[in-house]
Amino acid sequence: MDPGHENQDSSSCPVYVHNPHLKMMKEDLLYHFNLGTSTHNLPALFSDIKFVCVGGSPWRMKSFIEYIAGELGLEDPKSDYPNICAGTDRYAMYKVGPVLSVSHGMGIPSISIMLHELLKLLHHAHCTDVTIIRIGTSGGIGLEPGTVVITKQSVDATFLPRFEQVILGKTVVRSTDLDTDLAEKLLQCSNRLNQFNAVIANTMCTMDFYEGQARLDGAFCSYTEKDKQDYLAKAYASGVRNIEMESSVFAAMCKLSGLKAAVVCVTLLDRQKGDQLSSSHEVLHNLQQRPQILVGHFIKSQLGSSRKI
Amino acid sequence: MDPGHENQDSSSCPVYVHNPHLKMMKEDLLYHFNLGTSTHNLPALFSDIKFVCVGGSPWRMKSFIEYIAGELGLEDPKSDYPNICAGTDRYAMYKVGPVLSVSHGMGIPSISIMLHELLKLLHHAHCTDVTIIRIGTSGGIGLEPGTVVITKQSVDATFLPRFEQVILGKTVVRSTDLDTDLAEKLLQCSNRLNQFNAVIANTMCTMDFYEGQARLDGAFCSYTEKDKQDYLAKAYASGVRNIEMESSVFAAMCKLSGLKAAVVCVTLLDRQKGDQLSSSHEVLHNLQQRPQILVGHFIKSQLGSSRKI
Repeated sequence: MDPGHENQDSSSCPVYVHNPHLKMMKEDLLYHFNLGTSTHNLPALFSDIKFVCVGGSPWRMKSFIEYIAGELGLEDPKSDYPNICAGTDRYAMYKVGPVLSVSHGMGIPSISIMLHELLKLLHHAHCTDVTIIRIGTSGGIGLEPGTVVITKQSVDATFLPRFEQVILGKTVVRSTDLDTDLAEKLLQCSNRLNQFNAVIANTMCTMDFYEGQARLDGAFCSYTEKDKQDYLAKAYASGVRNIEMESSVFAAMCKLSGLKAAVVCVTLLDRQKGDQLSSSHEVLHNLQQRPQILVGHFIKSQLGSSRKI
Repeated sequence: MDPGHENQDSSSCPVYVHNPHLKMMKEDLLYHFNLGTSTHNLPALFSDIKFVCVGGSPWRMKSFIEYIAGELGLEDPKSDYPNICAGTDRYAMYKVGPVLSVSHGMGIPSISIMLHELLKLLHHAHCTDVTIIRIGTSGGIGLEPGTVVITKQSVDATFLPRFEQVILGKTVVRSTDLDTDLAEKLLQCSNRLNQFNAVIANTMCTMDFYEGQARLDGAFCSYTEKDKQDYLAKAYASGVRNIEMESSVFAAMCKLSGLKAAVVCVTLLDRQKGDQLSSSHEVLHNLQQRPQILVGHFIKSQLGSSRKI
């Protein structure tokens, strides 16, 4: 696909873009990252990346890079992890060794813009064999809060494993399959860690946090508590154990690009018991670290590094 | 609807929430704002609000509050405009006098979460007669870059004025009508200002920045330049003059709540001539100030204030 990859080891797997127009562009401006092919040496900056972790909150993605630096023994003595996208406030990006950490905001459109530019960045930088993991938060169904869900399939609001992409006004349906081997390895890793419960299950991806997730506490609500419970029970019966807002387009775009992808989200509450996130900030903060801890442990095991004492 | 409003002036228009469950909640936590009814005195903090301006970028919404403070002669001598949502990185919120400025991130789901919590905030604070304006950026169709588009109707990718909300797995169609009188007043205000061109026209709201807007420079592109131009020409023929990613759900939710709402976006490029935002940062920064200038001027004229010298 890209002439630049012809001499590479045939066993290595590049990041595919599927766009014949890109070759004809003199430069490619990754606008929402404030990076570009004519202003930045992308291969020099990024070609060693093997793991990309993405999550909604910029603060959490900075905290993740500090955590993974410690896990891999790559701490900056000044604890200085500059935001690579400092020229914009759309996304935040941090890198340490072979690990890139990028925020994506909330919802499908926001993560979709980030992924288009991330996939082009990895492509321009000639990265190979990249694993990408979304580490996030979610509402659980029938799980103890704090349980980590590793997504088997990302399903829509009717519990089907598909993502609808509108192109030129027409709807194209894309598969939301994730890498089953990667999910299994992450579960084994969690079992070895033995710090919290983790399960492999389906994740429902919605366009909205309130009405779209059957919450009773939005500005609008036209259904009853029973309607809500019936809907969540149907979701549970179909194999759904948590609900978030980015996994479907993440799965679809990573699959198209040949990246091994996983979604690892902690559940902050059991939606069958409530809607509001009323736990203390300290409790929620601790729960939010679980996907980081699991994925940090996994990356360390994959790189064969040992914990720095 | 809300017993708290019974004794108010019958001519004032409250912010409606349509959710019978809210009355039964002991407290309401506006999680993504890090505000709540039991931790904050929302009427004391917010009841004087008459104008809410929202936009994607937190930096831009801080810059707007500084600008409007100057316009209204309400500058803080220390130039200190604290972020009311400082405890979270999901949204940023600033207030000066009767004006609230809130960021909403990118895309329909992100602005939808913000609006649910904003509408509840205005409701809990007993605000009345609130006007809300989205000030944003967009891609233009057949317009000189820098033209400001005041939205007549927000249309979907098939050019229809509707927003599809999924509730309990079923699709509900909502109207995306905006306040025609407010749009007309904003246009007259721009004509009096006479600093840049402004038009009233339809705005297309998409779920995606690349394939969803017929760009040729995403990670994926399965169509030709001619397909793109044909699609944009059809949009133009239907009355669309700009494309962005939040106006449909903004219009739908504000209409349901009884808020007078407008969408004012500058066009950063003409999409019939290109896809990339390759103008200099200085040029783009200057263009992005136009909606702020227009809306600042409008608010000042509505409040009958005079410019501070």
